[in-house]
Amino acid sequence: MAKKVAVILAGCGVYDGSEIHESSAVFVHLSRAGAQTVFFAPDIEQMHVVSHTKGQPTEGKRNVLEESARIARGNIKDVNDLDVGEYDALIIPGGFGVAKNLSTWAVKGKDCTVTKEIEAIIRAFHSAKKPIGLCCISPVLAAKLLPGCELTVGCDTECEKWPYAGTASAIKELGCKHVNKEVHEAHVDMKNKLVTTSAFMCNSPVHEIYDGIGELVKCVLNLAV
Amino acid sequence: MAKKVAVILAGCGVYDGSEIHESSAVFVHLSRAGAQTVFFAPDIEQMHVVSHTKGQPTEGKRNVLEESARIARGNIKDVNDLDVGEYDALIIPGGFGVAKNLSTWAVKGKDCTVTKEIEAIIRAFHSAKKPIGLCCISPVLAAKLLPGCELTVGCDTECEKWPYAGTASAIKELGCKHVNKEVHEAHVDMKNKLVTTSAFMCNSPVHEIYDGIGELVKCVLNLAV
Repeated sequence: MAKKVAVILAGCGVYDGSEIHESSAVFVHLSRAGAQTVFFAPDIEQMHVVSHTKGQPTEGKRNVLEESARIARGNIKDVNDLDVGEYDALIIPGGFGVAKNLSTWAVKGKDCTVTKEIEAIIRAFHSAKKPIGLCCISPVLAAKLLPGCELTVGCDTECEKWPYAGTASAIKELGCKHVNKEVHEAHVDMKNKLVTTSAFMCNSPVHEIYDGIGELVKCVLNLAV
Repeated sequence: MAKKVAVILAGCGVYDGSEIHESSAVFVHLSRAGAQTVFFAPDIEQMHVVSHTKGQPTEGKRNVLEESARIARGNIKDVNDLDVGEYDALIIPGGFGVAKNLSTWAVKGKDCTVTKEIEAIIRAFHSAKKPIGLCCISPVLAAKLLPGCELTVGCDTECEKWPYAGTASAIKELGCKHVNKEVHEAHVDMKNKLVTTSAFMCNSPVHEIYDGIGELVKCVLNLAV
């Protein structure tokens, strides 16, 4: 029977929602592997709306579920309706929406909180020993909730290729182990059934990010029994 | 030297903009082939904003360039700044935005008009004998502007797999030749250097759409000299 994977979105667009190409790559790789993707998002207001031409907050309010539905082509559910028992795995693509709408990481860094619903879902998949795949900035959710886990957000030394390497330091300060990985690789924490890949934490061509997410999806499905 | 491809977007989301997974697939395949993608969109108001959870128009106004910038990760230009001489090829992904914001096809079908800027760009690439790649509903732009050209929007017989087959009839009524193709295939009109693939005109798993767009990108780059 096809494996069923819950994919949680956080809006639509890198600066205030889910990163579009990461989300699409997750969808394509799950589809190719014969798995069923079910999209979810919280039915809450976005932290703010960012003009993606200016990179600055702009006027207006948007709803995370409504905007995420653009990526899901309308086929999406409220996270409150996510019954962990029905799914074999969980994947959360990256994008600033994860740090703004699923947690307060964008504002508070390692002192952030994860929203109640997302915390409950991650803890439930973890307790059920079902794999969790996190890419780009999403690994910070696990760093906050599962102290001692092993994660990658790419490289821990800042350079042109790795402009957000400071995230690796924050992950270490939270008591987790950060493992340096290239963009086309994923890291597997076998004990916690946690799979992570850097995706757009790396300043690299989009097909390399697509391939890294392919590796993450493969590892997640291998861990799903 | 890397081939430079202009990709025109029409918003962000299947029901009122560019289809997100088609746009992402174009970006990934061009990247893998070593080509440079430059995103463009018209700086105009969307025909309307559609709630992607309800599939119905909703309140508010959005700008096509601003929303397209979500797919382009902020790296996008106004179509008025597109100098055809600088590019080796043009690709326009699908989505209802093509039929709403780049033309009036959604309202008037084969009696539609193509917006002045988009018409000028398509005619300029065609006159310069540079390849044009169109997927999903985008081939109707060529059907309207280049009578007698050969196109595919998939299959011309409506069924569960091909819910929008009526588009093929409209293309024929415009004096063009419609060629039936599977979702993983692209059709090449050598005379017009026109490459088309059905993408989400087909009710099929997203990885098959990704592969069809891969075929389109390959054919477009082969025709770019």
